[in-house]
Amino acid sequence: MKKVSSSFGYEEYEGPILERLDLYAAKSGEELVKEQSFVFSDRGGDQITLRPELTPTLARMIAQKQNELAFPVRWWSFGPFWRYERPQKGRTREFFQWNIDILGVDSPEADAELVAVAASFFQSVGLTPNEIKIFVNNRRLMDVTLAEMGIAPENRKTVFHIIDRRDKLNPNSWKEYALECGLTPDQFEQLCHILEDKDLWKKSDELVRFFNVLKAMKLDEFVVFDPQVIRGLEYYTGTVFEGRDAAGEGRAVFGGGRYDNLVGDVGGDPLPGVGFAMGDVMVTLLLQKYGKIPAKQEQQKMVLVTIFDSTLLPSSFSLANKLRLEGITVVTYPEAVKLQKQLKFADRKGIRFAAIQGPDEAAANTVTLKDLLKREQQTVPVEEAGKTLQSMMA
Amino acid sequence: MKKVSSSFGYEEYEGPILERLDLYAAKSGEELVKEQSFVFSDRGGDQITLRPELTPTLARMIAQKQNELAFPVRWWSFGPFWRYERPQKGRTREFFQWNIDILGVDSPEADAELVAVAASFFQSVGLTPNEIKIFVNNRRLMDVTLAEMGIAPENRKTVFHIIDRRDKLNPNSWKEYALECGLTPDQFEQLCHILEDKDLWKKSDELVRFFNVLKAMKLDEFVVFDPQVIRGLEYYTGTVFEGRDAAGEGRAVFGGGRYDNLVGDVGGDPLPGVGFAMGDVMVTLLLQKYGKIPAKQEQQKMVLVTIFDSTLLPSSFSLANKLRLEGITVVTYPEAVKLQKQLKFADRKGIRFAAIQGPDEAAANTVTLKDLLKREQQTVPVEEAGKTLQSMMA
Repeated sequence: MKKVSSSFGYEEYEGPILERLDLYAAKSGEELVKEQSFVFSDRGGDQITLRPELTPTLARMIAQKQNELAFPVRWWSFGPFWRYERPQKGRTREFFQWNIDILGVDSPEADAELVAVAASFFQSVGLTPNEIKIFVNNRRLMDVTLAEMGIAPENRKTVFHIIDRRDKLNPNSWKEYALECGLTPDQFEQLCHILEDKDLWKKSDELVRFFNVLKAMKLDEFVVFDPQVIRGLEYYTGTVFEGRDAAGEGRAVFGGGRYDNLVGDVGGDPLPGVGFAMGDVMVTLLLQKYGKIPAKQEQQKMVLVTIFDSTLLPSSFSLANKLRLEGITVVTYPEAVKLQKQLKFADRKGIRFAAIQGPDEAAANTVTLKDLLKREQQTVPVEEAGKTLQSMMA
Repeated sequence: MKKVSSSFGYEEYEGPILERLDLYAAKSGEELVKEQSFVFSDRGGDQITLRPELTPTLARMIAQKQNELAFPVRWWSFGPFWRYERPQKGRTREFFQWNIDILGVDSPEADAELVAVAASFFQSVGLTPNEIKIFVNNRRLMDVTLAEMGIAPENRKTVFHIIDRRDKLNPNSWKEYALECGLTPDQFEQLCHILEDKDLWKKSDELVRFFNVLKAMKLDEFVVFDPQVIRGLEYYTGTVFEGRDAAGEGRAVFGGGRYDNLVGDVGGDPLPGVGFAMGDVMVTLLLQKYGKIPAKQEQQKMVLVTIFDSTLLPSSFSLANKLRLEGITVVTYPEAVKLQKQLKFADRKGIRFAAIQGPDEAAANTVTLKDLLKREQQTVPVEEAGKTLQSMMA
């Protein structure tokens, strides 16, 4: 996440983890704040929330420094969040989230950049377009389309709710729900047609430009238009998107979109923005499912400096620090126990190299370097140990 | 912190940020838990604490996996902590802390390794032994010394409290306080003498071995024996240490020591450990004072890919992603505005290089690469742009 964010020129930032409750009052969904947040009074009586999401904090921070920042601002962050939900597959009460946003520009190319960041992340961890897909829609396109259906602006939210529930209900219940919400049978048929129309995006100049950019970046295989994508109702104003297992299982892996009113709503001047948030839990499940969990950082390049006995201990610690200053990762065995036990420790820890100095080596100011995997060794002057180890590791 | 921790072979871990209150009941100081922690009931009625420190969490985690881990375990962590204190110089309610510990070994060499980690960190950020000093003492040495003064074991804590308050009171009030606590005038004189005895460490075999190792590692200039260092009374059992501005100003920059009972106290088998915690706030003040704040990550190696107009926009985005895949950090200007405005943006962001593709370049499949600092430019085939930029940046 860090690597991909930087490669697009995004800068890392940190927001506070505790916020006052009222920050979330304006825009976060009711459910998120009233039912799912950890809210408490601190010792001074203030209503404090463990942040359930980062975007309101970002909007507040940007609003406070709006006159000092050089826009567009490209920022990313990674940190912990909390939601008091029933722990279940894909949901933990504490989780980590990657947030990344560009603010101060309202072009479809900026929307495409954010989706390109997400696709590049999936690419970099080895997930293919057969495993992860990013589904995209546009609020303005939906507004126009619903208007054409004869839906009044004040009823749009209701229809978005209907769309949002489509996958959560069986077809009959969903139809029943839609009609109960006030759709006419004819409008319901039209809605079904719209939700299956894979070419609807061609009516949106924004989405045409959006898909053009992703094609130019050779990332279009990750991206699919889907008129059923709605996302959070309070925030988003333009293009919206979410990543899902291409096999159609499970919850969204990440979600985001364009929010052009958010900074204005927390007291700043109106400022367009687009961004997304990706939690660690769903990504981890996806990586597990497709066998793409990155290997644990290899200890192959680590060196164990052994301790012969207490009199040679200072010499070994001196050697260890000399090697560290040459950029080598060095573990010392912190007691003078039997060499066998020290090498067994290296084995258990997966440490491949050992530097051993017994009385003979110490007297000659040399050290024996062992490759424990290849079972090779050589004795070299202490001065050359760093260089020799580096070539043994290469 | 990350770099130094890894260079000593420590592995990164994360602890939860919320813990149940009772975890802290056993060992954290009364003041820390009862007066300074953010404690609240969650929606399920559990008493939850925003962690004020990490060591109890570490002890709990180790105790839970004690049979699976290969000891010694070397772990480090970096994250947020909270204490409900009056915000003031060197104290914020939310702060970040580096925690690093070795568990499963009780040698003075392990104590020395932790102090070497701290000294190496200071070295790596450019702080010198004239700016930061690590003050070291040993609880067992103090126990023996106090016993020689005729202090009964049950009164040791009282004397540690007296020592701890020495720098917080003026000499007369401190003497008064000591006598009130029950020291005889003769014991008080002895205590004053002990606290000035810079050679007292030579009586401690542990400290002799400890200083030997630091000398061998050429880090001894950072380290000073100081019989006045006490640290948290509940945790520590052996060597204790803290870093302070060498000029004697302000609070401790970090603190730590040996705690041999902690894992046993949270339900594990007894297991020795030593570690320290360093907060971000005091380190930042120290770096500011000595002009050692690291320069902001340089954007010298960043490239701005400009956008000529909307028809060439896909071509520029294609170029941008091609360069990213070659390892270059690339920012695109996300709108087709005047070139002048785009280059001004690069200037404000400190971006040194620009890749410009107008209609002529696009037709010839080339790109003009500018070094905005040296005011040099060259036009090269798109295929060579990455390599050329890399050599311009070298």
